[in-house]
Amino acid sequence: MPRIVLMRHGQSTWNQRKLFTGWVDVDLTDEGRGQATDAAGVLAAEGIRPDLCFTSVQIRAIRTLWIVLDGLNMDWLPVVRDWRLNERHYGALQGFSKAEIADLVGEEQVRIWRRSWDVRPPLLDPEDPRFPGNDPRYAELSADQWPRGESLKDTVDRLAPAWTGPVRHALEQGRTPLIVAHGNSLRGVVKILDRIPDEVIPRVEIPVGRPLLYELDDALQPLESRYLGPVPKGTILPRDVPRS
Amino acid sequence: MPRIVLMRHGQSTWNQRKLFTGWVDVDLTDEGRGQATDAAGVLAAEGIRPDLCFTSVQIRAIRTLWIVLDGLNMDWLPVVRDWRLNERHYGALQGFSKAEIADLVGEEQVRIWRRSWDVRPPLLDPEDPRFPGNDPRYAELSADQWPRGESLKDTVDRLAPAWTGPVRHALEQGRTPLIVAHGNSLRGVVKILDRIPDEVIPRVEIPVGRPLLYELDDALQPLESRYLGPVPKGTILPRDVPRS
Repeated sequence: MPRIVLMRHGQSTWNQRKLFTGWVDVDLTDEGRGQATDAAGVLAAEGIRPDLCFTSVQIRAIRTLWIVLDGLNMDWLPVVRDWRLNERHYGALQGFSKAEIADLVGEEQVRIWRRSWDVRPPLLDPEDPRFPGNDPRYAELSADQWPRGESLKDTVDRLAPAWTGPVRHALEQGRTPLIVAHGNSLRGVVKILDRIPDEVIPRVEIPVGRPLLYELDDALQPLESRYLGPVPKGTILPRDVPRS
Repeated sequence: MPRIVLMRHGQSTWNQRKLFTGWVDVDLTDEGRGQATDAAGVLAAEGIRPDLCFTSVQIRAIRTLWIVLDGLNMDWLPVVRDWRLNERHYGALQGFSKAEIADLVGEEQVRIWRRSWDVRPPLLDPEDPRFPGNDPRYAELSADQWPRGESLKDTVDRLAPAWTGPVRHALEQGRTPLIVAHGNSLRGVVKILDRIPDEVIPRVEIPVGRPLLYELDDALQPLESRYLGPVPKGTILPRDVPRS
């Protein structure tokens, strides 16, 4: 039976400080590292052995994956780093705290930016040092792929080719992929898997650092999904988030 | 000008204990980790920015690369793990100390196994837990690719396709590869680059944890090679090892 494990990176320094992070490349906190270690223990205890890994080009996801692989003694697994698995680009909001932006524009506007499907944040100027075109890691993207600020829809749209290409291909070959990525890129993955409507997906919350297993049929449709190990109180499986 | 950086992993626990290691998957010592950190500092100081990495499927090389990438803040670089870059497989000698084998068979036989071009060590039985066919990381190799024990020649022969394929391709695309590998697989690389004769290559010693830079012409022939940063006293560049 095809299986895939999804996992959001462990807590980052900016999760902790409640800053808009997006494509800013912040590292894990000690707590985040511990979450990754725990996730490895849970995967080992459940006997889940991934055999191919996908992650973003952001250190908080890459390091989470390293810690998981180290804990599994499987550092030798192939790892594909793909910018399409990056977090949603939060445009000019990146680096500001959620509270300070709320003071400027009001709680309601912040809620719209954070919880809407297709509303973009204020866009970055291409001269801005935060603009991806100014970062060597994105040098091989074409100019129209450099985001200046993404809606959740934009994030899902650019994530989709990573899903339909290499990840799907790995599943079709009978492999068990492990994807370590970000809150919004994983919303994209579960939206595709669980066929979650546009207006529902912003309400799906995936906790940091917890492996989420999907068991699939031969057409790669989900038969079952569950978090492995403990999850924060109130966590709802993506498929169970109310659709109205 | 095409450039490539070669680096042997930092000191491993079995380097320290003077055991035949081969494909046994031992980790770095603290000193080995420190060597990797220092190598990152040297690369940064020299302004060498690799943009594609190759390593083996052995933790001592993978972890060395991780530490280097972390030190360069370039964890996002693509990394190709290739079993062809593994250390020479030391057959049935793996896990024994050089001293205890010398007590059994004499110093001269040990010298021949360690310093010859085409003499194989005693071969592993396929039932042996050390046989690569019993390790899931080598499950995708064909049966005739599972070594039971390699001469240096065997190692160079299986390394060559990694060089002539993806590494050469990266150089031709104008990229700067970083290869973090092992004493004998790197002998294979420098043998190809510096056209070192069969009878000379066993005398080439590459120190652990030191970046070795090659600058190449457009035909990928070496113009210059040098170690970056300090090297142990007595270190000789591969091209300068006496040929008679």
